[in-house]
Amino acid sequence: MSVDVAVVGATGLVGEALVELLEELDCPVAELHLLASGESAGKSVPFRGRNLRVRELDGFSFAQVKLALFATSAEVAGEHAARALAQGCTVIDLSGSVDGALVLPALNPARLGELGFPALLRVPCAPAAEVAEVVAALRDCVELQELSLTACLSASQLGREGVQELARQTAELLNARPVEPRLVDRQYAFNLLGLVGAADASGYSAIERRLNAELNELLPELQGRVQADCLLAPVFFGDALNLNLRSAVPIDLSEVRAALEAAEGIELVEDDYPTVIGDALGQDAIQVGRVRQGAAGPCNLNLWIASDNVRKGLGLNAANLAALLIKHYL
Amino acid sequence: MSVDVAVVGATGLVGEALVELLEELDCPVAELHLLASGESAGKSVPFRGRNLRVRELDGFSFAQVKLALFATSAEVAGEHAARALAQGCTVIDLSGSVDGALVLPALNPARLGELGFPALLRVPCAPAAEVAEVVAALRDCVELQELSLTACLSASQLGREGVQELARQTAELLNARPVEPRLVDRQYAFNLLGLVGAADASGYSAIERRLNAELNELLPELQGRVQADCLLAPVFFGDALNLNLRSAVPIDLSEVRAALEAAEGIELVEDDYPTVIGDALGQDAIQVGRVRQGAAGPCNLNLWIASDNVRKGLGLNAANLAALLIKHYL
Repeated sequence: MSVDVAVVGATGLVGEALVELLEELDCPVAELHLLASGESAGKSVPFRGRNLRVRELDGFSFAQVKLALFATSAEVAGEHAARALAQGCTVIDLSGSVDGALVLPALNPARLGELGFPALLRVPCAPAAEVAEVVAALRDCVELQELSLTACLSASQLGREGVQELARQTAELLNARPVEPRLVDRQYAFNLLGLVGAADASGYSAIERRLNAELNELLPELQGRVQADCLLAPVFFGDALNLNLRSAVPIDLSEVRAALEAAEGIELVEDDYPTVIGDALGQDAIQVGRVRQGAAGPCNLNLWIASDNVRKGLGLNAANLAALLIKHYL
Repeated sequence: MSVDVAVVGATGLVGEALVELLEELDCPVAELHLLASGESAGKSVPFRGRNLRVRELDGFSFAQVKLALFATSAEVAGEHAARALAQGCTVIDLSGSVDGALVLPALNPARLGELGFPALLRVPCAPAAEVAEVVAALRDCVELQELSLTACLSASQLGREGVQELARQTAELLNARPVEPRLVDRQYAFNLLGLVGAADASGYSAIERRLNAELNELLPELQGRVQADCLLAPVFFGDALNLNLRSAVPIDLSEVRAALEAAEGIELVEDDYPTVIGDALGQDAIQVGRVRQGAAGPCNLNLWIASDNVRKGLGLNAANLAALLIKHYL
């Protein structure tokens, strides 16, 4: 009951976390193939006590595996996911660029029963997964009408290069050297960037479009009444989310607390606020605090959320989805 | 037509900026008295080419001055502002703790005509002043119905000690030493704090209560439909504000841009986003970018704002109010 699996983008921040999680969750993987684009091929990544060599993506035939996870840029996934499917391989895309079925294992695993295999699947971006999981846990006490989110993303949103950029800029500043932006177009150290990447004609970044679309898809009761904005904070890892919900009926805060307390995958931080450092990083649970009524009245609920974007927001969801697929569908 | 003036809290971040601005704006000050609490008394602060000695607040008689500006903690203002008024001195409070008339010179200077003098006055906190000034500039194109704000405040919100805390923690981390939080109760460097200070029983911090109350007072058309949340970003200076507005009628973005372009005290950053570093710090204009329709539809407007909280958000408003008072009312 195990199958051969490929992880594409195995040397990236998310790819490495994913390989770790496949091992940690005892995912029924027979042989694991690690793939990356040119410059990273040849490196090795540990898996079940062995160092697996990372191979070149371009020449790889996906006919060798039943399942491929794409922890790559949107460009790479866009280029290779369709080829993988054509070669008989089911795809889990983490990049948001593949037009497949959106599945968040904690929320809509039944979606898998409606599909034929091999199939193209995708998991939500980290903030969409985190918010949807929290909101879904509240469905008995919040009749969701509107959702407003300010997602403070971290350097890891830009991958390993983003983390290096923030570290380099910070060191330059603290050593009284001029800041030389490379990956971003301005000073990022000790600054807040109000846009993550480039904006389209409507003024939104790719991650904002993805976040809005995925929240609408995962929480269809919202019917478009979503506003999700992203900024990039000078923080290395983790998501910090300021979430406002509006319910059609007044909200009982003690019911909200009880629902969060009971939810698997969520940890309620009572009478305090969680932060990425100290609370969220390395954890498998989304940390939720500051449970309070909105200033606009009892139909409004506000929460402050911290989560490990790489591990919890993306990696765990993709690894759990892989395990579900292998056990029941492939 | 000039009067004697006192600045209380003259050695703080905001107090020093205020003294600078009184000089820069040619505010009709005859003699300037600089006051501070015990440990800071004895220091000196430059004003009009002289170094003025900072004196002890406790023993100071406000009968010597016509106007006193309190750039102090809420506690100090709460203790001394009433005494100043009783001694015949008009008070401008910057701390938000004094129960006086709220005046933002750019918005409601006519309020001064309704008052008898000496009087207790207060200016809004920096994010309230910044948001109210922007929203007021849009009154012809936005029929304001709801306002939602995530205010990313900086270390300077906690005064000079906040700036020092962030610098010290960052240096400790980059030198691989353990972080020792002092002013805040956890790691602040490379972390986002989801609450600025302590929360009350309703879950809000003092700055959030002040911000919500002042926005409601400055923008009465909102009638309580305000949600303003504050977080503390690991940034030294400046406010970065994610602002969502809902209008009763569809919003024409080109009218919004034209109104922002025309507004004194506001700078439109076209087709880009401003940041505190590089755009806002040291500037007298609030920087507004990312002018875009909200994801929820054409009645929604989203903006990204960066502003120098110390200079523009607080200091200029207080100094301009002082000038108005001296010229027309004292």
